Amino acid sequence: MILAVDAMGGDNAPDCVIGGIRYALKKNKDLTFLLFGNEPVVRPFLEKYKIDPKVYTFVHTEDAVPPDEKPGIAVRTRRKSSMWLAIDAVKKGQADAVVSAGNTGALMAFSKVILGTLPAIHRPALLALIPTRKGECVGLDLGANAVCDARNLVEFAVMGEVYCRIVMKKSVPVVGFLNIGSEKTKGRDEIRQAAQILEESPSDTRRFYGYVEADGVGKDAVDVVVCDGFSGNVLIKAIEGTARLVVRLFKDFRSGGILGFFSFVLAVPLLLFLKKKMDPRRYNGAMLIGLKGISIKSHGGTDAVGYANAIGVAVETVKYDLLGQITENLKNVKFPDVTESGEKASAEQAKD
Amino acid sequence: MILAVDAMGGDNAPDCVIGGIRYALKKNKDLTFLLFGNEPVVRPFLEKYKIDPKVYTFVHTEDAVPPDEKPGIAVRTRRKSSMWLAIDAVKKGQADAVVSAGNTGALMAFSKVILGTLPAIHRPALLALIPTRKGECVGLDLGANAVCDARNLVEFAVMGEVYCRIVMKKSVPVVGFLNIGSEKTKGRDEIRQAAQILEESPSDTRRFYGYVEADGVGKDAVDVVVCDGFSGNVLIKAIEGTARLVVRLFKDFRSGGILGFFSFVLAVPLLLFLKKKMDPRRYNGAMLIGLKGISIKSHGGTDAVGYANAIGVAVETVKYDLLGQITENLKNVKFPDVTESGEKASAEQAKD
Repeated sequence: MILAVDAMGGDNAPDCVIGGIRYALKKNKDLTFLLFGNEPVVRPFLEKYKIDPKVYTFVHTEDAVPPDEKPGIAVRTRRKSSMWLAIDAVKKGQADAVVSAGNTGALMAFSKVILGTLPAIHRPALLALIPTRKGECVGLDLGANAVCDARNLVEFAVMGEVYCRIVMKKSVPVVGFLNIGSEKTKGRDEIRQAAQILEESPSDTRRFYGYVEADGVGKDAVDVVVCDGFSGNVLIKAIEGTARLVVRLFKDFRSGGILGFFSFVLAVPLLLFLKKKMDPRRYNGAMLIGLKGISIKSHGGTDAVGYANAIGVAVETVKYDLLGQITENLKNVKFPDVTESGEKASAEQAKD
Repeated sequence: MILAVDAMGGDNAPDCVIGGIRYALKKNKDLTFLLFGNEPVVRPFLEKYKIDPKVYTFVHTEDAVPPDEKPGIAVRTRRKSSMWLAIDAVKKGQADAVVSAGNTGALMAFSKVILGTLPAIHRPALLALIPTRKGECVGLDLGANAVCDARNLVEFAVMGEVYCRIVMKKSVPVVGFLNIGSEKTKGRDEIRQAAQILEESPSDTRRFYGYVEADGVGKDAVDVVVCDGFSGNVLIKAIEGTARLVVRLFKDFRSGGILGFFSFVLAVPLLLFLKKKMDPRRYNGAMLIGLKGISIKSHGGTDAVGYANAIGVAVETVKYDLLGQITENLKNVKFPDVTESGEKASAEQAKD
């Protein structure tokens, strides 16, 4: 399997990127890499981590996408950047998937322009796993589209369901829309419309749950939580932040007298368990799902361990025919002619 | 101080309501209550909790707002409900504030219709405290308005700042908008416009932080986090849900062999600390801020302890001249003529 890697993307790049490659190679010796980046900058890290020159091909480029550049500008001006070239390698069939920890908006825009979206998908979504009590839940969109309409949400639901069934091996995933209440009248118009479309499109391979609230995700209420990219980003970061806060509070508690100290020392196994279970690095590697190619986004601030997990997500996703399954499953969804307006959607329903 | 209480609102009403009143009376003997509800239903709980008849006046009504009724319908048809009458008592000057654990949308709509919004405020917001590492952070809107424009967000920012300064005694609160990245180009149009308005309206009593991500809230990045009601609801519920998940994971861990068991037993003080720190009941009592009167929403699923905290929030808020301060502070904000369109806001800026 050949992975294209943007060596310049990420707050700690290229250190975390090359360190991540070393970890990934320990797990999977069959991997080879197409590395894109500024060679004089990256070379010292290839030496630091003693990466065997046989497992990679280096493609030098001096351009890289700045982390805060607007996607629209990047698309016009960064066609020689490490990120653009890495994605282009997938399009050209030189690599099976691309991994980058760079500017999310640019990665999204480049991937759409270069790879194109799947037939029947209007907007790709960021998909990742969210830790829950019993395991994990597929979440999407976690940050690609700040604003979404009903059709986008339904497409996300089907993509999430397919990912959950094929990659995570759940036979009939339970799918719900993130909302601010469980009653039918709650939330935003586009969510209510999306719920109606999914309800009217029953499927043997999906159980539609309805609305799930943010505190239901950790309780394993659903296998797939579907949301717009803004709410999804708030959801995943609030979960990560609270898990870190709790660990932090435990450490602060240590100073609470001698009893606190002993209690803390003896709780270390628990703390390690918690850290492992909720470690954001463990859940690193979000897929841009909905494209004609596999594009994986690593968290910008991750380290080598987290980057290796993002590479792992790429490997898992390449193994399966996800893309064909998505198109197939969307055929069973009954979209109204227009989903932008509530009135039209209701009119469609009245006709049925 | 006289509080109007909707005895019928809440999943566990009237038990949690009357139980909450008993707890609140233990803390504050000067409270008296105007109770609204179905007397044959509520009476047994007044006896169960041995509430002194001298501390309350009962107003009987048979109507109550169902938890999932649409606010628009409730406003037209529930004018004799316990919730409506309780809010109306504040309007009539019979009570200093109202507390309800009932239908949030209806409470919001009733409060707006009956009490009216403050001059210069277009939409009231749900404000509550969010636990952080060092203390707590004021969050708003946490669920009142699923969709907001730039002007709403700026009004929320000023209201949150005033609340933080007056009730929480921070001299110069740090105020930030919840967003999905810290760069200026991130997020939704209305957030970028709101940030621009606040940046162009400097104040001695506020430090504008810019954008805060959901994982920055627990790290005390800001004193006030401002968001639309949908994202805010996701934020608060994800934090509560994750805190509960962590406690749950600790309990699950107990079954992990003898070492796990001892580790768990010895970690009990830590666990109690965590539960106390992150207890959603402790943070119960959201204020509908922006109205010409004080209206407090208790979480629908709370118990007596949580309800007593909601009563406590009412008491704290009544003590201060919040409402006058909000109007005063909004005078310093330079709103463009139109905030709905990004083009117009930019044109305004170009003129300056």
